[in-house]
Amino acid sequence: MTAPSAPAAVLIDGIGSLVTNDPALGEGPLGEVADAALIVEGGRVAWVGPSARAPRADVRVDAAGRCVIPGFVDSHSHIVFAGDRSREFAARMSGRPYEAGGIRTTVAATRAAGDADLLGNATRLLREAHAQGTTTLEVKSGYGLSVTDEERSLRIAGRVTDEVTFLGAHVVPPEYAEDPAGYVDLVTGPMLDACAPHARWIDVFCERGAFDEEASRRVLTAGQERGLLARVHGNQLGPGPGVRLAVEVGAASVDHCTHLAPEDVDALAQSAEGGEGTVATLLPGVDFSTRQPYPDARALLDAGAAVALAGDCNPGSCFTSSMAFCIALAVREMRMTPDEALRAATVGGARALRRTDVGHLGVGARADFALLDAPNHIYLAYRPGVPQVAAVWKDGELVSGRP
Amino acid sequence: MTAPSAPAAVLIDGIGSLVTNDPALGEGPLGEVADAALIVEGGRVAWVGPSARAPRADVRVDAAGRCVIPGFVDSHSHIVFAGDRSREFAARMSGRPYEAGGIRTTVAATRAAGDADLLGNATRLLREAHAQGTTTLEVKSGYGLSVTDEERSLRIAGRVTDEVTFLGAHVVPPEYAEDPAGYVDLVTGPMLDACAPHARWIDVFCERGAFDEEASRRVLTAGQERGLLARVHGNQLGPGPGVRLAVEVGAASVDHCTHLAPEDVDALAQSAEGGEGTVATLLPGVDFSTRQPYPDARALLDAGAAVALAGDCNPGSCFTSSMAFCIALAVREMRMTPDEALRAATVGGARALRRTDVGHLGVGARADFALLDAPNHIYLAYRPGVPQVAAVWKDGELVSGRP
Ligand SMILES: [Zn+2]
Ligand SMILES: [Zn+2]
Repeated sequence: MTAPSAPAAVLIDGIGSLVTNDPALGEGPLGEVADAALIVEGGRVAWVGPSARAPRADVRVDAAGRCVIPGFVDSHSHIVFAGDRSREFAARMSGRPYEAGGIRTTVAATRAAGDADLLGNATRLLREAHAQGTTTLEVKSGYGLSVTDEERSLRIAGRVTDEVTFLGAHVVPPEYAEDPAGYVDLVTGPMLDACAPHARWIDVFCERGAFDEEASRRVLTAGQERGLLARVHGNQLGPGPGVRLAVEVGAASVDHCTHLAPEDVDALAQSAEGGEGTVATLLPGVDFSTRQPYPDARALLDAGAAVALAGDCNPGSCFTSSMAFCIALAVREMRMTPDEALRAATVGGARALRRTDVGHLGVGARADFALLDAPNHIYLAYRPGVPQVAAVWKDGELVSGRP
Repeated sequence: MTAPSAPAAVLIDGIGSLVTNDPALGEGPLGEVADAALIVEGGRVAWVGPSARAPRADVRVDAAGRCVIPGFVDSHSHIVFAGDRSREFAARMSGRPYEAGGIRTTVAATRAAGDADLLGNATRLLREAHAQGTTTLEVKSGYGLSVTDEERSLRIAGRVTDEVTFLGAHVVPPEYAEDPAGYVDLVTGPMLDACAPHARWIDVFCERGAFDEEASRRVLTAGQERGLLARVHGNQLGPGPGVRLAVEVGAASVDHCTHLAPEDVDALAQSAEGGEGTVATLLPGVDFSTRQPYPDARALLDAGAAVALAGDCNPGSCFTSSMAFCIALAVREMRMTPDEALRAATVGGARALRRTDVGHLGVGARADFALLDAPNHIYLAYRPGVPQVAAVWKDGELVSGRP
């Protein structure tokens, strides 16, 4: 083996429209620069500006008038699992009864699967996400629900991402059906001991039928005491305490937000004022695939809350890995503008992960970006379902497609 | 150049689930065969059955447990055009006013474009459709609206498909704004003379603001007298005479059907009884991208009407070329089952084009099919927005992807 040579500086020029997400660098809230160029060096953005003024570099890539956007930051996924639930989906959408469905199907299959199968599945889904423009993907445990299976899920998640979330409190497993409090003791005790070293985040499904407010608070604060940062699943299936609990404990994000009371919107808006508050992460793919109503994104945005869009890729309620699809839904169903939707899917997701190095393309940012087969970013919503990501770079390396 | 050798017989085996659309060949309405194989010879399906019993062939392709479906038959598109309307889309979806929008923008840009640009754009969109599993694509004129520009559009359409539709009666062009009857005279006179030799179909936009019942009947019957087969745009923006006119003149299809009266449903159901009746072609991508309600597919299906799904790829009301996206919408929004939606997007589209050689994979059918990166066809709706077409064959030739 030879020592790696110094990484070359790469110039991407001829960019018809470059979305930087930095209003100081270009037009409007997206900081759009027309006829732009970008220089990547050492995995970071080294220069951004008009193509005509770009310095030279070692390698040149011609975007040929196409659009470049920051890579999507998908702050919510459950891709460590085994098993197939397509028949359950078909039954649900067709109004037919289906026996033995639900999350427990996935828990049983995941427990039974070998490490290599779980890693293979997660890796395939990560590559699929890359191919669709996602460069940062949060990954949760939550289909193990035993000390060893949760710890194993987190180790596997850590093979595909740095944003690993411990979600032992996803649902009470069958063996604790008669003793849900005992399961919370397990999650906050021996399971947390085993899992905390492998995760950055602690999460809980705070919902009727899963974990109530008190149990959710115990899970989150136990995780925080171990140095984990909090995030919450809340207000998905009905109104509930999830949003206010998330704000109370200083969670980085509360995800779903399908059923919000006016006080929830106020709490999120107030929280956003401080800068590092709680982001409302909307998962419209779930509402699509479960035929639920969509969250009131306009109320959140108009009140000043911080909003992110994420995919929630999982085998039960939403098996999409397409952030472009989520953007199209956000525009059609939640009346977000194309600009708002793209911001929510990039810099919004970054904020939901408390990251400032991704989600934008200012100088010094990670060189995580996607070249679209389209002249501008509106095409993500304007051409729903059409694959339009030509090539994707992460840390300055081409990880999918070809320019 | 050497003479081409006799085409080799190709065996696709290891198909986890093969959708034939022939109930005699397999299970259920889709005629699904598990662990199946398919032999292609001379551009046609030569053999279908269980993998274990497949005869030998010259070339073998291993589907590795994945699903094969008939290629999509997309019976409605407008891909001969020039110009960009993404800003108009963004304004519409954001509730902002937008000057100078609408179909006339596309007419002006199309008239101003060179042949090579129009053909290049249409070819790019055709390839994009192939890559997403579409193997038959109808293409309309309708952005020329002058004798020479309509005839040119049809010649270009004929370069990318055999299913060419003359839609001079798309909208009354600006120069006839004061004399719409004069425009109908043009369409049914000199324009038809120039265009009929280049088309298989005659179409009209029968809608308030476009062409009324009487004008629409004149256009359709004039076309039929010249040997063209009829199809109709109707009942998109409101209730109207389109559906009943389509049935009356024996049109192969009436497209949109967003606003149906009970008598319209009855007329379509009765028409379907005869075999070669009028198909109700639903275009849910349009309703998605214009934020309109969706057609009542259940009423149509439950009454016994023949239903097709099509994309309506066009720059104004729906710029998708993804039949998988239309299937996902059909399941989510129109409560079609995944089986019904796939049939509508394949054999339904074939019926809307009066074709029996495509849309199914019985012996003798054209070898037009798609290999999915999925174990079964439910994944088309189960994984919305995710590109899942691995490879596509048309007339037995690989036209996109790789197996
Ligand atoms: Zn989730
Ligand atoms: Zn149309």
